[in-house]
Amino acid sequence: MDPLLRLTAAARERTAAGLHRTLRSRPPGPWLLDLASNDYLGLSGDARVIEGAVEAVRTWGAGSTGSRLVTGTTELHTELEHRLAAFTGMPSALVFSSGYLANLGALTALRPRLIVSDQGNHASLIDGCRLSRAAVTVTPHADVAAVDAALTGTGDAIVVTDAVFSVDGDLAPLRELHQVVRRHGAILVIDEAHALGVVGPGGRGAAYAAGLAGQPDVVLTVTLSKSLGTQGGAVLGAPEVIETLVDTARSFVFDTGLAPACAGAALAALDVLDAEPDRPERARERARRLTGIARELGLETTSPAAAVVPVIIGDPHDAVRAAELCAEQGVRVGCFRPPSVPEGRACLRLSARADLGEADLTVACKALATVKEDSRPYPAPNAGATRR
Amino acid sequence: MDPLLRLTAAARERTAAGLHRTLRSRPPGPWLLDLASNDYLGLSGDARVIEGAVEAVRTWGAGSTGSRLVTGTTELHTELEHRLAAFTGMPSALVFSSGYLANLGALTALRPRLIVSDQGNHASLIDGCRLSRAAVTVTPHADVAAVDAALTGTGDAIVVTDAVFSVDGDLAPLRELHQVVRRHGAILVIDEAHALGVVGPGGRGAAYAAGLAGQPDVVLTVTLSKSLGTQGGAVLGAPEVIETLVDTARSFVFDTGLAPACAGAALAALDVLDAEPDRPERARERARRLTGIARELGLETTSPAAAVVPVIIGDPHDAVRAAELCAEQGVRVGCFRPPSVPEGRACLRLSARADLGEADLTVACKALATVKEDSRPYPAPNAGATRR
Ligand SMILES: Cc1ncc(COP(=O)(O)O)c(C=O)c1O
Ligand SMILES: Cc1ncc(COP(=O)(O)O)c(C=O)c1O
Repeated sequence: MDPLLRLTAAARERTAAGLHRTLRSRPPGPWLLDLASNDYLGLSGDARVIEGAVEAVRTWGAGSTGSRLVTGTTELHTELEHRLAAFTGMPSALVFSSGYLANLGALTALRPRLIVSDQGNHASLIDGCRLSRAAVTVTPHADVAAVDAALTGTGDAIVVTDAVFSVDGDLAPLRELHQVVRRHGAILVIDEAHALGVVGPGGRGAAYAAGLAGQPDVVLTVTLSKSLGTQGGAVLGAPEVIETLVDTARSFVFDTGLAPACAGAALAALDVLDAEPDRPERARERARRLTGIARELGLETTSPAAAVVPVIIGDPHDAVRAAELCAEQGVRVGCFRPPSVPEGRACLRLSARADLGEADLTVACKALATVKEDSRPYPAPNAGATRR
Repeated sequence: MDPLLRLTAAARERTAAGLHRTLRSRPPGPWLLDLASNDYLGLSGDARVIEGAVEAVRTWGAGSTGSRLVTGTTELHTELEHRLAAFTGMPSALVFSSGYLANLGALTALRPRLIVSDQGNHASLIDGCRLSRAAVTVTPHADVAAVDAALTGTGDAIVVTDAVFSVDGDLAPLRELHQVVRRHGAILVIDEAHALGVVGPGGRGAAYAAGLAGQPDVVLTVTLSKSLGTQGGAVLGAPEVIETLVDTARSFVFDTGLAPACAGAALAALDVLDAEPDRPERARERARRLTGIARELGLETTSPAAAVVPVIIGDPHDAVRAAELCAEQGVRVGCFRPPSVPEGRACLRLSARADLGEADLTVACKALATVKEDSRPYPAPNAGATRR
């Protein structure tokens, strides 16, 4: 009759499977090297972005005080929407309190009858599919022919994909997907979370780079929490799309507006991107360097399209151990285990940042060398004895 | 073949039904009187809360830079979790980036087989029910016997309710619900969004006031965006519950941690509540005064348990007109139409704030008098002619 017993039993199973997580709180700036955050441009700690947040708090207060439809839309929110639209080349934008809720809003409010979703898509897109009540077809990763086949014979469909996949770091075949979408009269929803500020000229994103910005059948979702260094999200698209979201997206209508501090920080981050359009390419270059280092050590990785560099380990226990080895050398890396990645594909996730220097790359190399060293298969206890 | 045509047609229908919404951005502080925000204690603009946000941004940066499980847990997040737990009398807490995502996390990660949900529950709880994949039974509003009947013969069940309902402003029968939940070995999830900081001694919430704080089968969700004046949310409960959420709540694991500014503001708001434990009662008293004013004018309202005062209008067009009449007098009120409220129950939603003065109440009275005046039934065009 104790309802918590069931939870305790499930927790024991997760621990046995190497899937238990521990929250560790960080003091301000203790890591020798951070290769785990999504602060790809190093803007979260940038003095200009911090001042943008501070000024917004002082002018507008600590909260937006209500739903965007009631009191939660300040002039700052409207300005941010105009700036995001201009930056990405889209007609209009709507700011949400997180990228997660922006994705839920985009996929539910457009009321598709069918959603075709890449199997590597982010959890928030998957939750959006589930909430939408649409029929959902999950297609193999980056498989345009499968998307085409899934669309046959249906109207009111959405095709949804990460622009840059959050753990593998590869780029979706956006141009090809759009051709298919256009042919079927569907809508293409692209989650630019890991592309905005990193991919495309000046960091304008993967849709912009693919020539899809401003197309009426393209909808973008972005987060303000990665390259822009703060918190929040947005959906960008045709005015018809944005009006539909304003009236009917539950995660917009029934949620408190983004805190002014975050809106102010995001605006300041966009100013930095305007002033330093080469920052995104610096982040991509550092990612290529990190990939090269991992490959030279004989570690398995992929070709980075943006700032995300995965190092495949395999077993979740080994992945935890590898992350700990890095941590012992002051290098913080992400450690992704099922269900964040497929079974057997536990990995370290390294994120490059525009502000990584040569010394940082040397430290990264040393840490990865230790991981490689540790992953050499040991002789099995008995095998060793026999050989002697 | 134009996928936007469908959206345009749906927009036209919403406009005809009086359900179209327009986003209006507010300049800093233009309203003579704000009766629309959820800033019940007036803390969003409080100098101490603003300084809490500013200090946090300067120390920790504009964003938390990653998932709470990777880089997104600062010492500030951990401190906020301890403070929220201590304040509400619960064993442990987990901070989310919004109350919306806290609710999704609580209802999905506990993996109930059945959720029994009050029909007046907030949209984020309804979305949590949908995402959970549990069987869902919606019970009539505040109907304990219906909850009891719905639970018969099932284990692994959750009963979920708003503590204070977001538009009607009434209090859930928490003690009775808990007795039923205990008898069935279920878990009671209480959304304290509109109760925290307003209800109970010192604003500790409705569960605390009902003697339910710390019970192992009680889980609370809160938002930092209403009484605490900023943004964010949290789930509070037994350590087994919190550990389950850390490992498996998708809206926690796959979301960027709360921005430091918001964590800092919420901590400062909790300091204010400690220093001024009479603020919550002031908000409740102002709500009773507003209710009295509306009743004396002959407007329909309910008995406020917290700071929310609904004024029922009925037709959505009339409700919009009533809100505009208030606005013309510089009084900002909420206007709730279907689907936020049941059909035929469009209403103005007034929220009391601890810092409303006598002059404010006089202004409110004048605005509501105009609403009443306007709502007198006109003689129908022909009826008038006949009578004469
Ligand atoms: C691809 C992708 N989409 C959406 C999100 C959610 O964005 P946010 O953290 O702003 O909620 C994330 C990560 O957090 C992501 O990786
Ligand atoms: C009852 C209730 N629960 C949850 C929420 C969501 O909280 P947040 O705005 O922090 O996402 C709200 C309102 O926004 C609410 O009214």
